[in-house]
Formats: sequence, structure tokens, C-alpha cells
Amino acid sequence: MRVATLRDGSPDGRLVLVAEDGATCRPAAARTLQAALDDGSGAGFEAAGEARPFDPAAAMAPLPRAFLFLDGSAYVNHVDLVRRARGAEMPARFWHDPLMYQGHSVFDGPRAPIRGAPEWGIDFEAEVAVMTRAVPRGTSPGEARALVAFVTLLNDVSLRALIPEELSKGFGFVQSKPASSCAPLAVAPDDLPGWDGGRLHGALRVDLNGRPFGRAEAGEDMTFDFPRLIAHAARTRDLSAGTVIGSGTVSNRDAGGGPGRPVAEGGRGYSCLAEQRMVETLQTGAPVTPFLAGGDRVTIRMEDGSGRDLFGTIEQVVDTAPA
Amino acid sequence: MRVATLRDGSPDGRLVLVAEDGATCRPAAARTLQAALDDGSGAGFEAAGEARPFDPAAAMAPLPRAFLFLDGSAYVNHVDLVRRARGAEMPARFWHDPLMYQGHSVFDGPRAPIRGAPEWGIDFEAEVAVMTRAVPRGTSPGEARALVAFVTLLNDVSLRALIPEELSKGFGFVQSKPASSCAPLAVAPDDLPGWDGGRLHGALRVDLNGRPFGRAEAGEDMTFDFPRLIAHAARTRDLSAGTVIGSGTVSNRDAGGGPGRPVAEGGRGYSCLAEQRMVETLQTGAPVTPFLAGGDRVTIRMEDGSGRDLFGTIEQVVDTAPA
Repeated sequence: MRVATLRDGSPDGRLVLVAEDGATCRPAAARTLQAALDDGSGAGFEAAGEARPFDPAAAMAPLPRAFLFLDGSAYVNHVDLVRRARGAEMPARFWHDPLMYQGHSVFDGPRAPIRGAPEWGIDFEAEVAVMTRAVPRGTSPGEARALVAFVTLLNDVSLRALIPEELSKGFGFVQSKPASSCAPLAVAPDDLPGWDGGRLHGALRVDLNGRPFGRAEAGEDMTFDFPRLIAHAARTRDLSAGTVIGSGTVSNRDAGGGPGRPVAEGGRGYSCLAEQRMVETLQTGAPVTPFLAGGDRVTIRMEDGSGRDLFGTIEQVVDTAPA
Repeated sequence: MRVATLRDGSPDGRLVLVAEDGATCRPAAARTLQAALDDGSGAGFEAAGEARPFDPAAAMAPLPRAFLFLDGSAYVNHVDLVRRARGAEMPARFWHDPLMYQGHSVFDGPRAPIRGAPEWGIDFEAEVAVMTRAVPRGTSPGEARALVAFVTLLNDVSLRALIPEELSKGFGFVQSKPASSCAPLAVAPDDLPGWDGGRLHGALRVDLNGRPFGRAEAGEDMTFDFPRLIAHAARTRDLSAGTVIGSGTVSNRDAGGGPGRPVAEGGRGYSCLAEQRMVETLQTGAPVTPFLAGGDRVTIRMEDGSGRDLFGTIEQVVDTAPA
């Protein structure tokens, strides 16, 4: 099953079921993805109307307003790099205790502008995310596997220049992580051959201004799989149906354990500018790649083996006009 | 206007308008508080049915599932005490740059049990909170004053034993802050004589096992008022209608600038166990008051000048049974 939410003037949009070829869609019995997930019986995902052309440009995020977004840092390689670039040691427990923060759970659509002031250090972070069924407190990773309802992609927009001061206060991200953008489609695990029950395998294709920037393999180097992240999130509390759990920036090590090379140099590149800048800092002492400027275009997508766009494409242009 | 949400078997309940005497209620035109706030015209808050007795025991949180909960630490006195008790200096900028974290925005009802393992160090935090209309990015504190739709009380349940390790990871609270509980009523500022446009004046009455524990004045020592907290939250992003902004633990200094005395010693007491424990630590070198145990009962409420219960009472009993 592949679902999307079309703009209809309401804040939560209209749920549709998208055909396998992505060309057409039909209205779902439930008005919204949240209502269909709350119902739990599956009845909300029945088709309730005629097929019509599916226009990805009319798509909001599949779940435009979730009640909860918890974003992990499951690719510990990325965290390790961040620390090394600023000369800090990463605690060893980060390899067995997931890093996770509570994020802004209202999601922008796949073609929303990325808005912000250039001096905020605007960056993208390409991620995989899942939407859960209701998760009771104390759910184990093994139990959590059956509670993954949908998989999608996110662009976790990050304001790098605001992060150090905000994190130094010790309470996590608020101003430095505005709304993330979500891919047009959420796809059930059964319809994803790359889903192995815990991780999604496939190259996360990030382009910047039309040039390949990242081709990281999402199924590799993910230290904590999604069931583990869900169990971490549910240790002390129930999670509502429709909770979004993010993987954190997808990041691969190279064969020698190092940070890998840019796509232009034959590597898999990176899923955020900060990582490329960190590699540059480690190699030359200073970053070269700038953060995003007004007009820059970021696209994020994943293809299956036959080149089909699995989740639709996140395609955002940076708008630095003042609020 | 005073609103509540009654259990009706759905996750978001049924919005009702509560009469001024609190004895009766009428169904609202909008099914949910979220729908009424989204609409924005006020039409959702029209009465749409006959008056019936209002039973606070049937109340969920007024907004059981919000899309966003940002909790400030506006009573900087509390933060200063926490730091001093652990021998740490509080940065001077904490007096002019609000501390705020992103919290779990699914709220328990006023009589939900507080669930957790006793070794997690279960504590309450009595707070004032507001629910906003839609807040555009870049809203100023002056503009934010008109965007406060409702005021209520929260118990921000905190698991003290889990906090140090979680905060040491630098990404804020996840496991250590499970669902907060909300008072039965949300009240519009116009119906709160104690609301001065930015702060709520009145004694926050916290009882533990039937004995007075806290009588802090919510309108005093609140370094950052709600419009300032809203503007902080909206600096880089739009806030959806129904965003909940918390004050953080209400905390007063005594006349000499010190931490104040327990209610039993003639002081105003505290709004969380941790603060009483910090005062004990500062005075004797070690805390005496234990965290919550199974069966402990916490009540939180606020009265107006004539002794009327303004928001209804949060009344929670601790349940330490395993999940």
C-alpha cells in the first residue's frame, strides 16, 4: 500500500491510495492518515471513490501534522564525525544507547520552500522515517517490528549556526530544527522489497542544484534499526498511532572505516552539507562547502531496482526572504 | 469561555463548553478543541446541544493530542536552584535567553495514573500552560499576546533518575519526560481576572497525599512571560493552532532571594519534589524528601479570589505496576 495526502484546504488534507505505477490514486475511506491509523482495523485504507490522476505537486506530507516525531541518530558514524570535526570524543555508549530527540511533528510538504535567514546556516538532512501503529509503553524491539505501518523519507532541515548555542543549553533542539519536509508517499513495509523488517535498503539519492551530492546506502551502517528506535521511544510512555520515528542523517563509512568521499570523487557522498564540511575540516582544517543560499535546490529520493521513484521526490528550493 | 473534552471512545474526545459555575456543560459546534482552533472563526465554540451535568471525572485533557508542546523554564529561580544543588554555575544568559524543550504533546487526562518504575525517581512539576492560535514564524512578543487562546494547568511528570544520563547526551528529554497530565478545563484569558496579558496570577496549589506541598504564586518570578515564550518558539517556524506552551515548574524566591521554605514552615513551598530536595541539599548536604512511591496522590489546582476551582483539579495517583 502506498498512500499520500492531497491538499484540500484543510490543515490535514485528504488521504488517497496511490496505484503501484504512481500515475493514479483513489480517495481512501478515512479522510486522513491519522484517522486511518487510529481506527486500526484497516477499514480506513479501503478505496472509496474513483481513480483519478495522481499529481505529486498537490501532495502535502502523508501525515501533515503528527502528534509525535522522535528523530534518532541511528547512523552513529555521522555522530562520530560531528564530534571528531570539533575535536570531541564520542562516548562509547553512543554505540549501544540510541541518541534521540523530540522534533517538530508538523511536516512541510515535499515541495515546500526551505525558509530561513542565510546566516542561520541552513542545511538539509536526508533521512528514512517510519510511522507507527499505537505502541504500548514497554514494547520490545521484537514486538515493535509488527508496529511499523509505513516508511517514508524526510528532509530534516537544520539551522547549523543556531545549533551550538541551543545545544549548549542542554535541552535539545527547538529553534535550530524547524519543520522537516516529507516525501509525497508513505509506503507499507510489505510493498518495499528493500525493507528487511528493521531497516530500509537502497541508495538515498540527494542532489544539490541538479548535481549528485549523496548516494548513501540506507541499509548499511544503521547501528540501531527502527524497531530498536521505537522501543527506545516507548520505554516510559505509550506512543500514539502515527508517531513518526526518524533514522537521523543517513551516513556510510568507507571501506577503511573513514568518512567516505564525495560522489564526484567516486564515493557515496553525504546526506547533509555538515557532513561534507566535517570531512573537509578533518582533511584540510576548514570547511569549503557553504551552507544553503537562497535559490539552492535540494532533491531527495530513493529508487527501486528498476529505477522507479519509491516515495516520490522531496524537491525544495531555499527562500531566504524575511518572515 | 471555559472548555473541556469528554471521553467518547475516540482518541480526541468531544469538546464541550462548561458553564461558569462548572456544574453543567453543552456540546460545542466543533467536535474537538483542535478543530475549533483550526477554524479560527470562533464558530466551533458555539453551543450545539442541550446543557447537561458536567462530570470532571469524565474529562480528558482539553486538547488530548496536541501537535506541539514546547515547555519553557520561565521561572529561572528553579533552574538556578537545580544548578546550585549540583554545584554548577548557571550561565548568566539564562536570565535573558529562554530555556525551552520540545515535549511529548499527547496529554494524559486529569485523573490518569502516573505510571512508572519507582527507581525512575518519579516526580511531578506543576505548571501553567497556554494553548495558542496559529502563530506565524517571526511573531514578536507584542504580537503573541493576542494569540493566547486558552490557559490551563499541567503536571509535567518527570523521571528524575533518568534525566542526568539523558541530558548528558545533549539532545534533551525523551524517556525522562513521559506524558504530562492536563487540568480538566482550558479557560480563555478574558475569563481569568488573574491573567495580565502575559502571566497568570494566583497561587498554584499543590497537595501531596492530602497535605499542602506548594502554594507558589504563578505571577511572580516568571522571568519570561508567555508571549515571550511563544515568540521564542516561533523564531524559525510557524506554530500550528493548538500549540501548547508550558511555563516550566512554577517557583518563587523568598524575600531574601533564597529558595523559600516549605508550606509547613510558613513558606510557599514548591511545585516539584526535586526543588524541595534541592533546598534540603543546599541546607544539609543531602535530600530528605523521597520521590513518589506507588499509591502517592498528587493534586494540582488554582482558585480564584472566592475559592472557586479555576481549571478543575489534576488528581493523580502513582501506579508503579510494570508495563
